[in-house]
Amino acid sequence: MNLQKHVSLNINVRGLGESPTLAINERVKLLQGQGKKIYNFGLGQSPFPVPAPVVEALRLHAHEKDYLPVKGLSALKEAVAGFHRQKDLVEANSDCVLVGPGSKELMFLLQLVFYGEIIVPTPCWVSYVPQAQILGKKISLLHTSFEDKWHISADRLRQHLEGEQDLYRPRILVLNYPGNPDGLTYTADELKEIARVAREYEIILLSDEIYGQLHHKGGHVSVARYYPEGTIISSGLSKWCGAGGWRLGTFTFPQSLDWLMESMAAVASETYTSVSAPIQYAGVQAFRGSMAIERYLWNARRILSVLGQRCYRNLADAGVRVHAPEGAFYMFPDFSPFSRRLAKKNVLNSTMLCERLLQEKGVAMLPGRAFERPHEELTARISYINFVGNRSLAAGETIPPHQELPADFIQAHCEDTLAGIEAIVDWLEE
Amino acid sequence: MNLQKHVSLNINVRGLGESPTLAINERVKLLQGQGKKIYNFGLGQSPFPVPAPVVEALRLHAHEKDYLPVKGLSALKEAVAGFHRQKDLVEANSDCVLVGPGSKELMFLLQLVFYGEIIVPTPCWVSYVPQAQILGKKISLLHTSFEDKWHISADRLRQHLEGEQDLYRPRILVLNYPGNPDGLTYTADELKEIARVAREYEIILLSDEIYGQLHHKGGHVSVARYYPEGTIISSGLSKWCGAGGWRLGTFTFPQSLDWLMESMAAVASETYTSVSAPIQYAGVQAFRGSMAIERYLWNARRILSVLGQRCYRNLADAGVRVHAPEGAFYMFPDFSPFSRRLAKKNVLNSTMLCERLLQEKGVAMLPGRAFERPHEELTARISYINFVGNRSLAAGETIPPHQELPADFIQAHCEDTLAGIEAIVDWLEE
Repeated sequence: MNLQKHVSLNINVRGLGESPTLAINERVKLLQGQGKKIYNFGLGQSPFPVPAPVVEALRLHAHEKDYLPVKGLSALKEAVAGFHRQKDLVEANSDCVLVGPGSKELMFLLQLVFYGEIIVPTPCWVSYVPQAQILGKKISLLHTSFEDKWHISADRLRQHLEGEQDLYRPRILVLNYPGNPDGLTYTADELKEIARVAREYEIILLSDEIYGQLHHKGGHVSVARYYPEGTIISSGLSKWCGAGGWRLGTFTFPQSLDWLMESMAAVASETYTSVSAPIQYAGVQAFRGSMAIERYLWNARRILSVLGQRCYRNLADAGVRVHAPEGAFYMFPDFSPFSRRLAKKNVLNSTMLCERLLQEKGVAMLPGRAFERPHEELTARISYINFVGNRSLAAGETIPPHQELPADFIQAHCEDTLAGIEAIVDWLEE
Repeated sequence: MNLQKHVSLNINVRGLGESPTLAINERVKLLQGQGKKIYNFGLGQSPFPVPAPVVEALRLHAHEKDYLPVKGLSALKEAVAGFHRQKDLVEANSDCVLVGPGSKELMFLLQLVFYGEIIVPTPCWVSYVPQAQILGKKISLLHTSFEDKWHISADRLRQHLEGEQDLYRPRILVLNYPGNPDGLTYTADELKEIARVAREYEIILLSDEIYGQLHHKGGHVSVARYYPEGTIISSGLSKWCGAGGWRLGTFTFPQSLDWLMESMAAVASETYTSVSAPIQYAGVQAFRGSMAIERYLWNARRILSVLGQRCYRNLADAGVRVHAPEGAFYMFPDFSPFSRRLAKKNVLNSTMLCERLLQEKGVAMLPGRAFERPHEELTARISYINFVGNRSLAAGETIPPHQELPADFIQAHCEDTLAGIEAIVDWLEE
């Protein structure tokens, strides 16, 4: 008997590969295992350790073994609501917090339970479209441009909404800022405008603010301030708290969307059940915050900001089209000024671009295509975080907060990142 | 604006409530909060603590923050494969292990990716049917009977398979033993017969053995021994390791079903991503095992066995139809001998039975209906675990392993469980 001949898979998942961000990491590890020097700009994982008080909280609660409530531990929901009230100056009620094993899983549940159109501006996070595919759904992609700083404007949004001949169809617009893959964010004025259109057309906003605390100047503003009744805020421990591998994400709903939250919780109760108990107890410490955590954030931002500006400058000076990063740890350069030269090398799309840079220079990036950009567009995401996070953080802590990082800090602590950028520039000029 | 008027939900999830096992627990906590005395036979959570070396391993690895590979940490997959080789005497390859945040989530992914019929004998675990409903699918339920010890026989299975006029349709048969909700298990001979039919019709078996190590005599046998090429073994930390709230489940596949595993992993990479890293590191310790863990299991089994027999005896003596438990911590009594008396109390189905027992005697059980039994059948699941697990385990450890637990052990350490059973008997006789 040969059960392999019986391959019988849901047509929506046939051919579905591993998520590109995870796949690139596994590929990098393989190449490194073969002794190759790799500049890993592929994975979107914070380089910094989990703050010490949060790790200590996990140790303290290691014995917690009970199944926790589906929506989350009460104290954690309180802490998350408090976090958004304090950091984002929005009303947030602990009864309207849903805790999940990563905001990716929560986004999947949202797509599963919501019956309506989901609108995502591109470049966008890699998982929205595959999640829709798994569920047999379709996402409305709105392409933005380099000139618009990869932002969707209120006008563009209105134009899309009116184009459908169905003004009040159920809709969710996904915003992500500071953004993956672009590292850029919206101004308060831009958000106000978008909020106005969203309110007018009664669209739900899913505001993915998982990089909010990694705004390089600490100046994150949530769209929920301008559209509280229609905005779901997505957050979690993965980015600002360095705990991607812990798997804890949160959605904070307005009261008026409790029907969405309850439905997601019902599906959660039949799937992942609840988030790992010891992790939730530790999460309380993280979301409650402390001076130690603020200090950690201050240092993390300072390093990312200086490094981001340096990488940006080096690319821009070489003629690459790229915006100076404002948050998170990404840039989304456009290599089209080199398109003729690249065409001669037979590099005709973003996949080829990344593949050749990996093979010829050991630079791992993700192609623009993974972020739903047209394939022939020569864009890619650079995660400028291939440095030893705990070492650079420790070094940063020795420098008084009000002082700028010394000129040689980046060279000393993030040398490999600069070397990777240089390798890209070299390759472009070859 | 009122977004509530826009409720727009996937029709498959409308009206979906919280999973009954979780809902009963939250209800019990509410009643207890009101000062009511409750005998909680509702939740299926091990009463015992996580073994000390496993908790210690979590403390040691609390700082682990990386996203782990989607299928699981290499060392954990090795440990899980080794566990099944050693405990179940089956071939198991670490490349064919998939780690997820609970076996419930893995079952959901299996239902999502597999295109074919899923056959589940009843009474069955509460989540199979709601999961299918969420996905817009249908499960083929095969009702068994008290007389058959709630088992599906090979003959009955063959009869079902031949009834479809489509002999080789893609199919998965789910077996769960020791079983939830019945606490009963299959003999090796029964499993051999089922394996023979499964091989003949090329059916995949999903063998849910999460209670395997809680076979009261330590005599668990896996059907994978008789049908290795077509059996997926489901296991995890939730039951034998007392770590339900940690959320770690495993599926172990035969090589021939790698297409199913790969597809599930692809969906995992777009949903939960990977299981919490510190939890996976701790899981290595659990699955590798040790003398301390064996001692823990020995004691847990001894307590559950003696207590289960005592509860069984007390119910059976009162005239309830129930089988002596063989594993796990459940019984699935049939109260039909009291049907006339119950009808006079206006108790006409399993929901009413449980509701009235909760209201009148404070006994929380789950109705047979939650396990897909006909509603008018007067069955219910009793989880006989409302006792203080760490206290009874510590007391058990003072009694040499070869010695029987003293006659008063259960009275001293599981008094509330006996009192709950007595409350049921009293109510029946009222």
